Amino acid sequence: MHKQYIFKDTINQLATPETFKNICHEHHEGESMPSSEQLGHIVEKLREIIFPGYFGNIKLEQAKMPYYLGVYVNEVFDLLSEQVLAGLCFACQTPESRDISAYSEKAKNIASEFITQLPTIRQQLVNDVKAAYEGDPAAISYGEVIYCYPAIRAISSYRIAHALLQLEVPIIPRMISEMAHSETGIDIHPSAKIGESFTIDHGTGVVVGSTSIIGNNVKLYQGVTLGAKSFPLDENGNPIKGIARHPIVEDNVIVYSQATILGRITIGANSVIGGNVWLTESVPANSRIIQRKAKETQYSDGGGI
Amino acid sequence: MHKQYIFKDTINQLATPETFKNICHEHHEGESMPSSEQLGHIVEKLREIIFPGYFGNIKLEQAKMPYYLGVYVNEVFDLLSEQVLAGLCFACQTPESRDISAYSEKAKNIASEFITQLPTIRQQLVNDVKAAYEGDPAAISYGEVIYCYPAIRAISSYRIAHALLQLEVPIIPRMISEMAHSETGIDIHPSAKIGESFTIDHGTGVVVGSTSIIGNNVKLYQGVTLGAKSFPLDENGNPIKGIARHPIVEDNVIVYSQATILGRITIGANSVIGGNVWLTESVPANSRIIQRKAKETQYSDGGGI
Amino acid sequence: MHKQYIFKDTINQLATPETFKNICHEHHEGESMPSSEQLGHIVEKLREIIFPGYFGNIKLEQAKMPYYLGVYVNEVFDLLSEQVLAGLCFACQTPESRDISAYSEKAKNIASEFITQLPTIRQQLVNDVKAAYEGDPAAISYGEVIYCYPAIRAISSYRIAHALLQLEVPIIPRMISEMAHSETGIDIHPSAKIGESFTIDHGTGVVVGSTSIIGNNVKLYQGVTLGAKSFPLDENGNPIKGIARHPIVEDNVIVYSQATILGRITIGANSVIGGNVWLTESVPANSRIIQRKAKETQYSDGGGI
Amino acid sequence: MHKQYIFKDTINQLATPETFKNICHEHHEGESMPSSEQLGHIVEKLREIIFPGYFGNIKLEQAKMPYYLGVYVNEVFDLLSEQVLAGLCFACQTPESRDISAYSEKAKNIASEFITQLPTIRQQLVNDVKAAYEGDPAAISYGEVIYCYPAIRAISSYRIAHALLQLEVPIIPRMISEMAHSETGIDIHPSAKIGESFTIDHGTGVVVGSTSIIGNNVKLYQGVTLGAKSFPLDENGNPIKGIARHPIVEDNVIVYSQATILGRITIGANSVIGGNVWLTESVPANSRIIQRKAKETQYSDGGGI
Amino acid sequence: MHKQYIFKDTINQLATPETFKNICHEHHEGESMPSSEQLGHIVEKLREIIFPGYFGNIKLEQAKMPYYLGVYVNEVFDLLSEQVLAGLCFACQTPESRDISAYSEKAKNIASEFITQLPTIRQQLVNDVKAAYEGDPAAISYGEVIYCYPAIRAISSYRIAHALLQLEVPIIPRMISEMAHSETGIDIHPSAKIGESFTIDHGTGVVVGSTSIIGNNVKLYQGVTLGAKSFPLDENGNPIKGIARHPIVEDNVIVYSQATILGRITIGANSVIGGNVWLTESVPANSRIIQRKAKETQYSDGGGI
Amino acid sequence: MHKQYIFKDTINQLATPETFKNICHEHHEGESMPSSEQLGHIVEKLREIIFPGYFGNIKLEQAKMPYYLGVYVNEVFDLLSEQVLAGLCFACQTPESRDISAYSEKAKNIASEFITQLPTIRQQLVNDVKAAYEGDPAAISYGEVIYCYPAIRAISSYRIAHALLQLEVPIIPRMISEMAHSETGIDIHPSAKIGESFTIDHGTGVVVGSTSIIGNNVKLYQGVTLGAKSFPLDENGNPIKGIARHPIVEDNVIVYSQATILGRITIGANSVIGGNVWLTESVPANSRIIQRKAKETQYSDGGGI
Repeated sequence: MHKQYIFKDTINQLATPETFKNICHEHHEGESMPSSEQLGHIVEKLREIIFPGYFGNIKLEQAKMPYYLGVYVNEVFDLLSEQVLAGLCFACQTPESRDISAYSEKAKNIASEFITQLPTIRQQLVNDVKAAYEGDPAAISYGEVIYCYPAIRAISSYRIAHALLQLEVPIIPRMISEMAHSETGIDIHPSAKIGESFTIDHGTGVVVGSTSIIGNNVKLYQGVTLGAKSFPLDENGNPIKGIARHPIVEDNVIVYSQATILGRITIGANSVIGGNVWLTESVPANSRIIQRKAKETQYSDGGGI
Repeated sequence: MHKQYIFKDTINQLATPETFKNICHEHHEGESMPSSEQLGHIVEKLREIIFPGYFGNIKLEQAKMPYYLGVYVNEVFDLLSEQVLAGLCFACQTPESRDISAYSEKAKNIASEFITQLPTIRQQLVNDVKAAYEGDPAAISYGEVIYCYPAIRAISSYRIAHALLQLEVPIIPRMISEMAHSETGIDIHPSAKIGESFTIDHGTGVVVGSTSIIGNNVKLYQGVTLGAKSFPLDENGNPIKGIARHPIVEDNVIVYSQATILGRITIGANSVIGGNVWLTESVPANSRIIQRKAKETQYSDGGGI
Repeated sequence: MHKQYIFKDTINQLATPETFKNICHEHHEGESMPSSEQLGHIVEKLREIIFPGYFGNIKLEQAKMPYYLGVYVNEVFDLLSEQVLAGLCFACQTPESRDISAYSEKAKNIASEFITQLPTIRQQLVNDVKAAYEGDPAAISYGEVIYCYPAIRAISSYRIAHALLQLEVPIIPRMISEMAHSETGIDIHPSAKIGESFTIDHGTGVVVGSTSIIGNNVKLYQGVTLGAKSFPLDENGNPIKGIARHPIVEDNVIVYSQATILGRITIGANSVIGGNVWLTESVPANSRIIQRKAKETQYSDGGGI
Repeated sequence: MHKQYIFKDTINQLATPETFKNICHEHHEGESMPSSEQLGHIVEKLREIIFPGYFGNIKLEQAKMPYYLGVYVNEVFDLLSEQVLAGLCFACQTPESRDISAYSEKAKNIASEFITQLPTIRQQLVNDVKAAYEGDPAAISYGEVIYCYPAIRAISSYRIAHALLQLEVPIIPRMISEMAHSETGIDIHPSAKIGESFTIDHGTGVVVGSTSIIGNNVKLYQGVTLGAKSFPLDENGNPIKGIARHPIVEDNVIVYSQATILGRITIGANSVIGGNVWLTESVPANSRIIQRKAKETQYSDGGGI
Repeated sequence: MHKQYIFKDTINQLATPETFKNICHEHHEGESMPSSEQLGHIVEKLREIIFPGYFGNIKLEQAKMPYYLGVYVNEVFDLLSEQVLAGLCFACQTPESRDISAYSEKAKNIASEFITQLPTIRQQLVNDVKAAYEGDPAAISYGEVIYCYPAIRAISSYRIAHALLQLEVPIIPRMISEMAHSETGIDIHPSAKIGESFTIDHGTGVVVGSTSIIGNNVKLYQGVTLGAKSFPLDENGNPIKGIARHPIVEDNVIVYSQATILGRITIGANSVIGGNVWLTESVPANSRIIQRKAKETQYSDGGGI
Repeated sequence: MHKQYIFKDTINQLATPETFKNICHEHHEGESMPSSEQLGHIVEKLREIIFPGYFGNIKLEQAKMPYYLGVYVNEVFDLLSEQVLAGLCFACQTPESRDISAYSEKAKNIASEFITQLPTIRQQLVNDVKAAYEGDPAAISYGEVIYCYPAIRAISSYRIAHALLQLEVPIIPRMISEMAHSETGIDIHPSAKIGESFTIDHGTGVVVGSTSIIGNNVKLYQGVTLGAKSFPLDENGNPIKGIARHPIVEDNVIVYSQATILGRITIGANSVIGGNVWLTESVPANSRIIQRKAKETQYSDGGGI
């Protein structure tokens, strides 16, 4: 073994707390950290519970289903209690303020409360599935929508993450939404408010910012951004957190692909926003907004622009 | 264990058929359902068969290859027969019309027919690889294209899914194309028609709708949409399914990033469509279309727009 | 077993070298090929080393950390040496020019050199994390940024891949960047040059081309392309490889979502480029560029455009 | 690749049916074969059902247990139905006598009947556990017996296999008993008849032959054989199958380690058989049989005998 | 689905606490139970620590070893602390006497104390390896002994389990020794006392009872039992637990295969006990005991006895 | 974290080469070691090749079998070449005598030669299966024998290991035979010589020593030892290695359970040795040897002896 393959110095540098403590100061010794892997299992099991028969081992045979649901619900409770606890510890800044056994009880209460909301979440998602089916001429059956549409996957994760955020769970909702973002290219912040029968077609590149408010029967196409414009800074030059800075999209609005809608503006009900539009001002109900017509031009080179 | 952690009521609600049967009515008891996991194995093995030496255990040593190909082809046949059968059962609306043993035989015939098309599919993909290599100055070798280019992964899945759709397999082709969509951000509907030597650069956000027709030597950049505009409704207000509503893109066309092309329009041969264009009308052959020049503006705030 | 399920002819066709050798000519018999799976393990372990406590088994307990870092660093060295060797073999065109044992020694030297750069790479990524936290009002803690932000994942992979490319490792850097592309929708070519404190918000659809140069404190939003325009062809009509053809983005620039910036142009320092802009000409420092205002229009059909 | 590493001839020899068909003549093409792996899962799940809380995920919390038992029982039913079917096919000599769908129905009926016997099997095993605990001064708790005693594992497998054999399942019971034999060194033929409160101490090397009959409260030590002596041959010189040829061991008998008891003899109730005895004749009730006293001898070599 | 496949009644019977609570009364709700799987990991890691380079990923390269040992030792500490805690809970009869957080601290102290004994345990096992090598003419190297000899596996587990038992860990030591028993057929009770340089040849069927005392340089062959004779009963007719009832085997004794030695007798130093002997009385030092000569006999049947 | 949980001193002690180098002196830095896991895969694949259709994925369908056999044979070649190389390195005492590339070539030649012996090994094992079937009245079919009989598993491993030993492979044959020993309790040294149609019934505890010679049609029962008596020592008091010291068992001999036969004696053809006999002298052909009759005795205590 060559001398240069002995990495003693490098390892010592890497183990020096000064080189990472700046970004890790809220991470205390000895506590378990949130786990993407466990959250993945939780979301998978929740999808099995919500859409029985599609994703897992739950059989639609009426005689067996209660047993499977009972086991899955209890497993979700156990796994989620652990992750909520990890999230509570993660968010707590000062060691002295932490009381693990109180946190553990709180985590179980939150997980329990979340479980009781599952029938409601299923109801919402059933409506989202119907909206996707009815809005897409290429859709052949509800089954195809549930199996194949990335929007359903992303919206399921959003509705789960949103419910957890309402229960004041730190970090975990964001991790769940980013896992869906990675799988679908659809990035919905869990603190956005979204109404009934929401659909997204294709979906890659959609961004729904954290203070967005979306009404009922809204449809977004791929690449649509509901984002923030510039944001006010505090006296130290840092962005002020928590200010409403994303659009309000009222009922029955359609936004076509790649449109960018920025700032706390309102898209009035029943409006249609065309593709590739850059929009930073409110529009009244029933508007139709499209990009200016492109121009034709002439180039002499071999194929490019 | 606290009383509130006993989820008897919630489990009973979740097990009530009324809460999910609306969206699950085509799903019959006791049949096996299509499995994303199995389809993932099938696509992986097909990629090993098509590009031997790159993705799996097939060695390029001439003496060994026929054994490996023989095993892989037979494994694909077995796995695919099962998934095609699951797809046929999934699509069948009324229990009385189903005859499992006839379906099983039909599924094997379809899988068998698909297998015999593999040499043709390889030939098409070899041409796609060449087109990607020749069209990208950053490409160093065919090998790099096969290993690294998401477009090759997405187009492989498209050509596989399209062949299965031609054989009238339900649901499975869509599942395969959505798996590629999730991995690459490229969403090609398996019923689109795509010619030889097709390439997509970078690819994230590309959408090719279900009735699109694409000629030979076409190149798309990331974020390009070949989509539908509004679509006619039937007497009940539902979209009429199956109508040609996506663009026709003729030979040798290039479409730059984030362009949105909507409706049953024709992009004439040899045209170049610039990035971020919103296009809803046909253009003749040899056109050059670009977005109007952006304007410069002045803002006073701290960095935003 | 039916006669038609015996795929002897198909297997023979698939095993015929003529049908794949065109695209596989640089792939020699008997050598091990680069492996996405192994590269995935390497990147995962590197993330554990760089951000200790977040992604793996490294405990932040001071007494344990050096042991874990020592093991992980050595594992990365072993795995990376193998992959670098596979990359060197992959890139070598002619069998006679290869000397496996010299290549193996070279691969170990490269892996060793890379290991010694890890403290520097951590330092860069710590700054990237800070920039993301400070630039996003929705970010709650550094921990959330490290856990949840796809940009951090993509930039980590970029900085790793870029370091390997600087050490002249073939193919491997591109495979690493494409793995991050698949997970995040962010496509950064490893040969791009990127300064300190780089951030990307949301990120899906971002493309940073291979000859791009990005200064310090630059922020990109989702869907931004730093791409090439047309490129000069050689006498055979093939694109000339290696020419600088992507933008230079100077310090403190912000580019909003879906903007497309093409060609070897310069975006002057402190400029802001609005969303959905198509830009193919240089702009001076302190510019503000936005899309022309969209027009309002009237449609009579049932909801579309 | 050297010529000698191409194993074409060897592979062809190995694929020649004449070289294996003699021993495989009852194995028909295309049917699934019994699977040790699946049987392993079945036995594991049965142990979880029978001794809840010890071996798997079944929690002893009263509110959860019915869900877990429901799922496990249904899983055992599904897995066992498949294995029983495979066993029926395996045992069937002539293809024309097989009717897969009738066999499949028969297999489900058998598995169903077996499931209903589980409460009885648990009752028997509870008594076996008590007997082991009470008979061993080293045993500290019932829990230790269930967790640690190989005899309980072997007797569990025996009682499961015996029940399946009573239901006329071919091959599967023998596979189950051999799996226990491999784990524990205790070889109990599933067709032996064994009474209540049976215990084996240590157990390695115990053999209980197929026609053995064992009463209640019998205890065997390690290495005890209940075997056959010579057996009558038929006119072709082959052993006549199915004749009673193993011992009858009546109630309350103890047999010490390494004793060999051969032939259809009877060990009368309450007898004690000493270790290392070779016994081929019946003994009346209340007997005490021990080996003749060993002799002392003198050797001059360096440590051996 | 047939009515008979709905196992509602059976499941309810199985979930009735009365049917299992007799044997599970010491098992309290909600605590984690000892896990064979985790104990398997612990023993495996301990073998890697004790015999570095043989069983796992520890490389013998001097520069790397401390890192690997550091990680493994810490992993063993974490895993073992959990299992010791589970063992303490398992053994505790009355819920009111349990104080989980005190137990948890106690478990960590025990695990910590055990860790510090590892260098001593290695020293003992090094001597056992030497004894096995020197005593077996078929042994070719120490390496072969460590890799292949079941005795080394069994004695390793014994020395680990014995150390844990000395630290008053309940149940866990017995589980560890039974795992070795299952793998090797060698059953050494962890509370036996065994001296230096102990060897067992072949080993299948060896039993060393719980109150056995074995001196230095003792060698046992396969099938040897150091067991108990009858044992005194208490007033309820139950065996009195904890009485010394197994043999004392002094230094330098050899016991040949299948010998059965029962009761609290003493085999004097330097004695040799022949195979298949049944011995229930003490023998002085330097004894040679062998079975009486077998007799020759005549049978008329076809091959048997 | 408590001070006592920081194991710095213990880790340093464990990493001190002096504490393990005595037993590891033949283990050189940086070479790969033999792997039980890989040997397990090799033996499994060999069993699939030898008994096609029983243990793995090889289908008995005539059209598929050559493909599967081709893949399996090539996989065995690759895996075995690596293990043989590891064995050669393991056995080499002095670093200077090693030439890895020569060893690697030698390992491939050995593996190749072994592969060509597989048809012969299959033929031998087919005869062993027939002998087991014909000799056991409880055997129902050849299939049951192949699936369930531990003797077939142990003899398969013996015949594989013996062939490798004949090819002068170090350590690997012993590891293979010990893996079978662990699974079956049957310990056959790979250097023993065993004729055709060998059977073992039940088998637990059987030992066949390294210089044993066994003729054709021999049958052993469980617990039989063919062992060594005392062995001559060299001038240093160490046993002289390599001397013939185990029995010769001629054709058609049967040895009943727990018999111990020691030393270089000859059991003449057609003899029958009864159970529990201790035999250290040769017997002529056609002998019948049984233990002396046990005596009846009287005890007064509560059930024991």
